[in-house]
Amino acid sequence: MNIPDLEIPRVVIVGGGFAGLNLAKQFKGEDVQVVMFDKNNYHTFQPLLYQVATAGLEPDSIAYPHRNIFKNHRNFTIRMAEVLGVKPEENQVVTNIGVLDYDYLVLCTGSVTNFFGQKQIEKESMPMKSVPEALNIRSLILQNFEAALLTEDLKERESLMNIVIVGGGPTGVELAGALAELKKHVLPQDYPDLDLRQMKINLVEGADRLLPPMSSEASAKAKKYLKNLGVNIWLNTMITDYDGMRATANQGKPFLSQTLIWAAGVKGSTVQGIPADSIVKGNRVEVDRYSRVKGSENIYCIGDLAFMPTEKFPEGQPQLAQVAIQQGKRLGKNILRSLNGKEPVKFEYSDPGSMATIGRNRAVVDLPNWKFQGAFAWFVWMFIHLIALVGFRNKVLVLFNWMYNYFRFAREIRLIIRPYRKNGEKEKPLLKQEQL
Amino acid sequence: MNIPDLEIPRVVIVGGGFAGLNLAKQFKGEDVQVVMFDKNNYHTFQPLLYQVATAGLEPDSIAYPHRNIFKNHRNFTIRMAEVLGVKPEENQVVTNIGVLDYDYLVLCTGSVTNFFGQKQIEKESMPMKSVPEALNIRSLILQNFEAALLTEDLKERESLMNIVIVGGGPTGVELAGALAELKKHVLPQDYPDLDLRQMKINLVEGADRLLPPMSSEASAKAKKYLKNLGVNIWLNTMITDYDGMRATANQGKPFLSQTLIWAAGVKGSTVQGIPADSIVKGNRVEVDRYSRVKGSENIYCIGDLAFMPTEKFPEGQPQLAQVAIQQGKRLGKNILRSLNGKEPVKFEYSDPGSMATIGRNRAVVDLPNWKFQGAFAWFVWMFIHLIALVGFRNKVLVLFNWMYNYFRFAREIRLIIRPYRKNGEKEKPLLKQEQL
Repeated sequence: MNIPDLEIPRVVIVGGGFAGLNLAKQFKGEDVQVVMFDKNNYHTFQPLLYQVATAGLEPDSIAYPHRNIFKNHRNFTIRMAEVLGVKPEENQVVTNIGVLDYDYLVLCTGSVTNFFGQKQIEKESMPMKSVPEALNIRSLILQNFEAALLTEDLKERESLMNIVIVGGGPTGVELAGALAELKKHVLPQDYPDLDLRQMKINLVEGADRLLPPMSSEASAKAKKYLKNLGVNIWLNTMITDYDGMRATANQGKPFLSQTLIWAAGVKGSTVQGIPADSIVKGNRVEVDRYSRVKGSENIYCIGDLAFMPTEKFPEGQPQLAQVAIQQGKRLGKNILRSLNGKEPVKFEYSDPGSMATIGRNRAVVDLPNWKFQGAFAWFVWMFIHLIALVGFRNKVLVLFNWMYNYFRFAREIRLIIRPYRKNGEKEKPLLKQEQL
Repeated sequence: MNIPDLEIPRVVIVGGGFAGLNLAKQFKGEDVQVVMFDKNNYHTFQPLLYQVATAGLEPDSIAYPHRNIFKNHRNFTIRMAEVLGVKPEENQVVTNIGVLDYDYLVLCTGSVTNFFGQKQIEKESMPMKSVPEALNIRSLILQNFEAALLTEDLKERESLMNIVIVGGGPTGVELAGALAELKKHVLPQDYPDLDLRQMKINLVEGADRLLPPMSSEASAKAKKYLKNLGVNIWLNTMITDYDGMRATANQGKPFLSQTLIWAAGVKGSTVQGIPADSIVKGNRVEVDRYSRVKGSENIYCIGDLAFMPTEKFPEGQPQLAQVAIQQGKRLGKNILRSLNGKEPVKFEYSDPGSMATIGRNRAVVDLPNWKFQGAFAWFVWMFIHLIALVGFRNKVLVLFNWMYNYFRFAREIRLIIRPYRKNGEKEKPLLKQEQL
């Protein structure tokens, strides 16, 4: 794959998400060769995917080219590739574009949507872990509204307008809020012929409260905000089956909806060849406090994929952007320390707090010593996300879009650029040329 | 299709491009029911498609939702649909979502890429008439550069980096200039391992000068600007065959390139059922000075699809946005006049001039009484395009992107969001899992 051998230690990084990005940045100007593999040529700012799905932000403002991030890193090489596996005994990583030797290998492949083995749901529902998936949701919702105009069948129309979101974590809550605002401010003006009161936004959560990892104050306020926006919240409820039209739950009536968004869980995106006994619950890879994969010498794992139990987090660190960022920085520093003959430092997560936004002027924030909700929380949420976004251009674009959408109650990117076809099927023509 | 019968005259408009948009706007608040059909839910600002293809603008800034444009038009209905044909004797239009009666039917379906019957070229080359097509070009160019990094075969690498643009009209010239700037300012920094001097941008034109419809001063300056940017210009040259790798011309050596962009011509996108003898050269529909289709009473045609020969333009009006806009406005006023018992007014194109941009500080402008080129022309070009863009949000976004790209020599949306696969084929894995 034309990667020069610089005869300095080579760190191979698999995945350019928050973990990989922050790890690679540590090596700028150091005597280390960094090689990154990523399936995409861009970094995805996952926390704002839900705004792409709901026509609030264009995809190009939350994606940023890897090559631009690392343009001044002379010791950095990136290749768009899929990693097929690892050969630990040979210190080699196998990709679809060739085999490469490593001195240090770091897996930061993150997580993928977990359907918990429910094949039928996987086939018919919409995941939202990547930019194309978020765009598919944007297209599908708009397509379904266009289709709702055409039918005389009330049940069919209802199913086209209704939305079911499975999973009441931050993704599900933020998505439900954004959809409720679309319903309130944008769709009635776009579709005066439809009775928007018929549109139901259902948020389904298996636990007994929303935002289970956050404080009970945050859960309660999120619930209240969503109720005020007209979202139907179903706690202690699990979706057990979905045929593309009807979603069956473990209790209550089934939901009639042609749009089911699955945000109910993730699982580690492991790589073949790493020690089998390192793979634990949730398909994560168990590592020690130095992010080293259990049973290996020079293979590391950070971010969503890593399972690092500590005293504070016996069930592993939470699968959050902040953990990935901190683990990336820590591991980068540790690798440099070990190259300089110094002892590595144990990872300890410094929790800056967590937050979720529900809609205009409505967010919930849990800081370690302060929990607050409402308009100020909403400002804090926006500020933090702007700061964290990669690229000055993207920060400006996102800020402009937010201000514009706020003051004009607008969502002007409700575009169906690539129509979504479930399971890749062709559009069914309702009438054929022969009828002419 | 659930369209109410308002018992006032119904104007059915097929296509929401410049012609259809400007026609429909005339009827705001009038006693006319307007029904528009469009395949997309958005209007495309075609003059800037080339900037989407070259990573200068995000697609969402040149597309604008139809429903937003017409949100305050109470007598306006739009349906996403494909029109399959017309039944003139029954005053009905047949679409894939149903049949509709009309009092006035206006065809504004515009034009599609014309491959002049060359099936092999059509199969292998890239057209650029829609947002998805422009995005395909963006993806393909970036994918080919990623692939160029992986090959040791010099011919293969050259073919991945080279680009052939067929057609030296405004689209081809603007595209060539934008690609030359990518080559100069962005690609060397992204791909330090590639020798960018090997990349050839070829602009192929059948006539003996670029921009054939413009003045000879404009042609000469455009040629000079492009040469200075390193574009190879091939005049009096026609591409006769292309197999996806090698483009054969009527003279000289074949071009070795895996990216051939076809901007060599358009043809009318006609609709079945209109009088056969109205269809003339270039698949256009012949109309009289009132835009009425030859041989019909109440079917009209405007924009690129219409062929309206006049004394000034015996070969029909030029296929330009300005003609479409003026014909739309004129026809709208004429329909309202006829409903009020007034005589319609003949269409006469008022030529505001034409222009093309080549790159930073370089454009050519032909006004009726003044021809100028250079930095001022470039400002005029930008100003006119900003004014013409639909939607305040889009104007701001485009202006910001232009300023950002200008001052930072940047193209930060070089993202491969949906990888392009020629002819829909799957990606060929270079190595397989079994090799593990």
